[in-house]
Amino acid sequence: MKVAVYPGSFDPITNGHMDIIKRASKIFDKLIVAVARNPNKVATFTVAERMELIKKAVSDLPNVEVDHFEGLLVDFMRKKNARVIIKGLRAVSDFEYEFQMALMNRKLDPNIETLFMMTSYKYSYLSSSVVKEIGRLGGCIGELVPEVILPDIQKKLINS
Amino acid sequence: MKVAVYPGSFDPITNGHMDIIKRASKIFDKLIVAVARNPNKVATFTVAERMELIKKAVSDLPNVEVDHFEGLLVDFMRKKNARVIIKGLRAVSDFEYEFQMALMNRKLDPNIETLFMMTSYKYSYLSSSVVKEIGRLGGCIGELVPEVILPDIQKKLINS
Amino acid sequence: MKVAVYPGSFDPITNGHMDIIKRASKIFDKLIVAVARNPNKVATFTVAERMELIKKAVSDLPNVEVDHFEGLLVDFMRKKNARVIIKGLRAVSDFEYEFQMALMNRKLDPNIETLFMMTSYKYSYLSSSVVKEIGRLGGCIGELVPEVILPDIQKKLINS
Amino acid sequence: MKVAVYPGSFDPITNGHMDIIKRASKIFDKLIVAVARNPNKVATFTVAERMELIKKAVSDLPNVEVDHFEGLLVDFMRKKNARVIIKGLRAVSDFEYEFQMALMNRKLDPNIETLFMMTSYKYSYLSSSVVKEIGRLGGCIGELVPEVILPDIQKKLINS
Amino acid sequence: MKVAVYPGSFDPITNGHMDIIKRASKIFDKLIVAVARNPNKVATFTVAERMELIKKAVSDLPNVEVDHFEGLLVDFMRKKNARVIIKGLRAVSDFEYEFQMALMNRKLDPNIETLFMMTSYKYSYLSSSVVKEIGRLGGCIGELVPEVILPDIQKKLINS
Amino acid sequence: MKVAVYPGSFDPITNGHMDIIKRASKIFDKLIVAVARNPNKVATFTVAERMELIKKAVSDLPNVEVDHFEGLLVDFMRKKNARVIIKGLRAVSDFEYEFQMALMNRKLDPNIETLFMMTSYKYSYLSSSVVKEIGRLGGCIGELVPEVILPDIQKKLINS
Repeated sequence: MKVAVYPGSFDPITNGHMDIIKRASKIFDKLIVAVARNPNKVATFTVAERMELIKKAVSDLPNVEVDHFEGLLVDFMRKKNARVIIKGLRAVSDFEYEFQMALMNRKLDPNIETLFMMTSYKYSYLSSSVVKEIGRLGGCIGELVPEVILPDIQKKLINS
Repeated sequence: MKVAVYPGSFDPITNGHMDIIKRASKIFDKLIVAVARNPNKVATFTVAERMELIKKAVSDLPNVEVDHFEGLLVDFMRKKNARVIIKGLRAVSDFEYEFQMALMNRKLDPNIETLFMMTSYKYSYLSSSVVKEIGRLGGCIGELVPEVILPDIQKKLINS
Repeated sequence: MKVAVYPGSFDPITNGHMDIIKRASKIFDKLIVAVARNPNKVATFTVAERMELIKKAVSDLPNVEVDHFEGLLVDFMRKKNARVIIKGLRAVSDFEYEFQMALMNRKLDPNIETLFMMTSYKYSYLSSSVVKEIGRLGGCIGELVPEVILPDIQKKLINS
Repeated sequence: MKVAVYPGSFDPITNGHMDIIKRASKIFDKLIVAVARNPNKVATFTVAERMELIKKAVSDLPNVEVDHFEGLLVDFMRKKNARVIIKGLRAVSDFEYEFQMALMNRKLDPNIETLFMMTSYKYSYLSSSVVKEIGRLGGCIGELVPEVILPDIQKKLINS
Repeated sequence: MKVAVYPGSFDPITNGHMDIIKRASKIFDKLIVAVARNPNKVATFTVAERMELIKKAVSDLPNVEVDHFEGLLVDFMRKKNARVIIKGLRAVSDFEYEFQMALMNRKLDPNIETLFMMTSYKYSYLSSSVVKEIGRLGGCIGELVPEVILPDIQKKLINS
Repeated sequence: MKVAVYPGSFDPITNGHMDIIKRASKIFDKLIVAVARNPNKVATFTVAERMELIKKAVSDLPNVEVDHFEGLLVDFMRKKNARVIIKGLRAVSDFEYEFQMALMNRKLDPNIETLFMMTSYKYSYLSSSVVKEIGRLGGCIGELVPEVILPDIQKKLINS
């Protein structure tokens, strides 16, 4: 069984992430969406909240699992018996950072492979930061995040 | 009447900004230089100080107005009956960020258009951060900011 | 009256070009679409054919004019009393080439300004070459070029 | 069974291509290396020669097949019941071109997905053109192409 | 005597830095590795610690000197009678930032020249931040920093 | 004695090249400007003409020599006892191609080092192709090439 891991902050999950999740879940037997807990980065949503939102958003994708990790991604991969990392690319700046990460992960474990997928051009401008900035300024984020979790995200952003 | 808005932090205004202001003011009937108040970003100059510096620097350009905004740029545009955003580009890294912003703004209001102008190559290295860093380290910023506001900027940087 | 010129090969015009033409025609009083005759480059469509296709495609845009030029663009601009060049940008590679051209044109005539517009992300993959390659390989180009000239383009591509 | 297609000119195959083939063959059940016949591009090796070289180079990889195609890649994919295109990325310039191609292919068939893999940094400078240029100038190409086909390539380059 | 200066944070020095130091020390009569003290940036190692680590790492390179500076780099250069700045480049993002710095330094002192060297592709993913992140997460940094200072760096990272 | 080689097509030499030559000749004891003879590329000026133009342009720089080579650059370097290649960078697109060349040359001879210098921003738009295109279209190339060879270049361009 081919297992792939899609790691990220997902603070919160956006329609751009959903686009990658849907595409990748068709290619691999199981896809694990893995929320990274980064103690050095201030997050808007807790890891538990982020996992809850993703679970709601992927509930109709039977081969998608939601998990979280702390520490090195390659250690999490080995624990899960997964060899493929999935990353979405939107633009050249993404590309350089992701390349560096992929080279580093390959160095740490040569059996682990990173595969890049292109985010749909419809979402090329979209990121969690953009969602949070627009949400806080009172703009409409209705087309930017999955409908089923829109109220949860709006409530949180208004209060943060 | 064609009104364009040139938004930015202008913390402080540099000769690179002045270059864009002069060029854009020849193309449009009115140009509004709009200082963004960003509560999440620590600024060196207050919004009032930044507006004062710009007003001094553009005093001989009759069709240039100075204003400020908080919140979504598209809301400010609509209030001002302006449909064109002007942004200066210096390099590839500028380009990607500005592209993302422009796509987001077009999403928020399809009637608003972003036009990019090239900063003169003479100022391709110049940014507000560069001015502040050199000023604080005691370097000469005489050719980097408008002459008329040089003393104001130097005084502030020495004391900050 | 603000006149802008949108120069290019247009070999043939695509929906990406149309997107820029529609946007720019709303900002300027008159927009001249200017087909460049380049004796050193082999074209699929003649200059006359390219102008004919553009004319059909822009027939419902009253302030758009179609013309052609040979030689330096800045000379054509002066002849037309136009000071603004419009260029569409899709990606970073576009950006560098267009920047170089814009700097060169500014050098040749400092009164002429180049303004860049972003092509809609829907057309970020689209170019005249892509249309021709897909058309020749028998793929469907129906959503890539204006409907009104689709038969003309298909006929030409099949016979070339 | 997950089938992936790795398309390219392979004129000739290099160690950079081999790196991608080895990695991809571990992830998918079957990998088809597909030589593109492009009537508009002058090639050094014929399609038959290129396929022969690849077959020799991949002879110890049981799940790798060698084939060729003319026309649209998406048509070849459908004929082979394959939904995944594999492309190697070395640098930013690769990235933009490949992105454009991937968007175009997604447009032509939304069921086909392009996955990008990073070429090992050891081969980041390597391309078929580099091999041919060095070979023709009498430089050593011993570490640039698979050992088993080195004599074939050298013979061809000396005579071309 | 040709003196070159290799400035940086070196927080801490990595094998990527060592690669540049070794190459540059063969080209110039003397190479000064200059640790920048930046009061606005939180560092993991103190300036004294960083200099100590570099001194250990370059002890077998007789024409390499270790120093530090605060304030403008061009002032340090003049004090040291050096006219050449050496910078390593790994990727496009490095390139743009370094270009801006080099233009600024040329503006501040036209007699000072910046020369760029390519970091070996083996270290294209490597930076001080990557070393610190992996070290803190308990990953192996044995091939990322000079062997002679590996225990010092590990001890610090575990305690920070 | 430190000898550096500045290789290129120089078809013809521009003020951008002159800028690099002047800067590099101050850093190295001897600088060899080396015209590459490329049998696969159609040139406007013959190798002899290009060398003649460069010789006129550098006549007041005593430590600059003009030469030419065919075949691998690293072979020419060894024959000249030179270990340093100088290349000018203007933009990101330059950067990627030059990086690939530098990696290849390092592979062919690890003792040879490529150093990159930034072309003055005044010449960031300038290339031999731009000079030829403007010259042929009747534009003024007076500030683009060294004054002493302007008549020679104009004469050639008008007749080609």
